[in-house]
Amino acid sequence: MSRMTKGETTRNSVLDSALALASEDGLAGVTIGRLAERCGLSKSGLFAHFSSKENLQVEILKETIDRFVAQVVSPALKAARGEARVQALFDRWMSWPKEFPGGCIFAVAAVELDDKPGPARDVLVASQKDWQATLATAARIAVEEGHFRSNLDVDQFAHEVYCMGYGHLAVSRLRLHPDGGARTRRAFERLVRDARALDAGPAARKRN
Amino acid sequence: MSRMTKGETTRNSVLDSALALASEDGLAGVTIGRLAERCGLSKSGLFAHFSSKENLQVEILKETIDRFVAQVVSPALKAARGEARVQALFDRWMSWPKEFPGGCIFAVAAVELDDKPGPARDVLVASQKDWQATLATAARIAVEEGHFRSNLDVDQFAHEVYCMGYGHLAVSRLRLHPDGGARTRRAFERLVRDARALDAGPAARKRN
Repeated sequence: MSRMTKGETTRNSVLDSALALASEDGLAGVTIGRLAERCGLSKSGLFAHFSSKENLQVEILKETIDRFVAQVVSPALKAARGEARVQALFDRWMSWPKEFPGGCIFAVAAVELDDKPGPARDVLVASQKDWQATLATAARIAVEEGHFRSNLDVDQFAHEVYCMGYGHLAVSRLRLHPDGGARTRRAFERLVRDARALDAGPAARKRN
Repeated sequence: MSRMTKGETTRNSVLDSALALASEDGLAGVTIGRLAERCGLSKSGLFAHFSSKENLQVEILKETIDRFVAQVVSPALKAARGEARVQALFDRWMSWPKEFPGGCIFAVAAVELDDKPGPARDVLVASQKDWQATLATAARIAVEEGHFRSNLDVDQFAHEVYCMGYGHLAVSRLRLHPDGGARTRRAFERLVRDARALDAGPAARKRN
């Protein structure tokens, strides 16, 4: 573990609070004043860190992306190339909102920023495009490995996994149905089944 | 057309403004003060109509539900029983957010109210359960008509259409990909194809 400077420690603890607030009340709910109060720091000190509310929103999104990569993408990339990796990406994505008291920050930010052009929206849009591209790349590798069929439209596959998973995460906290998580898992399994090569053996299904 | 009283006309025009505001800035963005300013009415007059901010949120959601029923559900129920009706429900749902300057109010409200128990959340949850039930019922009728296979899990079908359509609507305003709408349409067609009875003739596909 690398040692952090005092400044880095403070910054991380402030971002922890900022992410928790954002997940509960949206990016607009994270004012520098409110954040200062929650962290027991001065407003002027926080201004020195973040300079503006807009910059604070950008920093919150960048930190969320870093955590998404650390908790979802990087560990899943350690799974074997092919279907196992596609499965690992989806599994980790579905668990990811548990990191936050108010659910997935991307889902919160998407409805907030959709009609607010600017740097924060740009960062969010880039993150979602990257995530779709990661899913498409994993599917493309599964084709190369012979787990998925060669005529699979991997971008279409990524779009379907993304929209379905996103829809599930966005409404899961409303608890519309006790069986919602299992249904979403079945939906994903159906997408994978449809993507599989007819002759893909059990090795393709091995999840490591 | 029935004639409206002056009170009803005022109420409708206030709700028009409230729905527009809610779709752009969320339910929390619709304060009685802001609404009064936008409608050119007194705050005390609006308090007489809505009595509290919480009640205003409930009224916004109820009005949104009424419009959803009028613009999505009722017209689609005029389509022929079976697959045509399932298609009509989905088509109208995908067009529905165009009614609002800031996109679908349900998607906005879902991330806002997920961790805020109360009457507004209850109304939202009931509306989303009703919508899933409407999709499931349409699928069940398609089974009865012989368009969909008899072993179809109609609740699972409804869940998949709902999550996928919801995910698409929630992110469509971020314009992640120019082809997103067409991809979502293909995803829906695939769900329908998978649901179809093997011997369903062309009549099942007739969209009236």
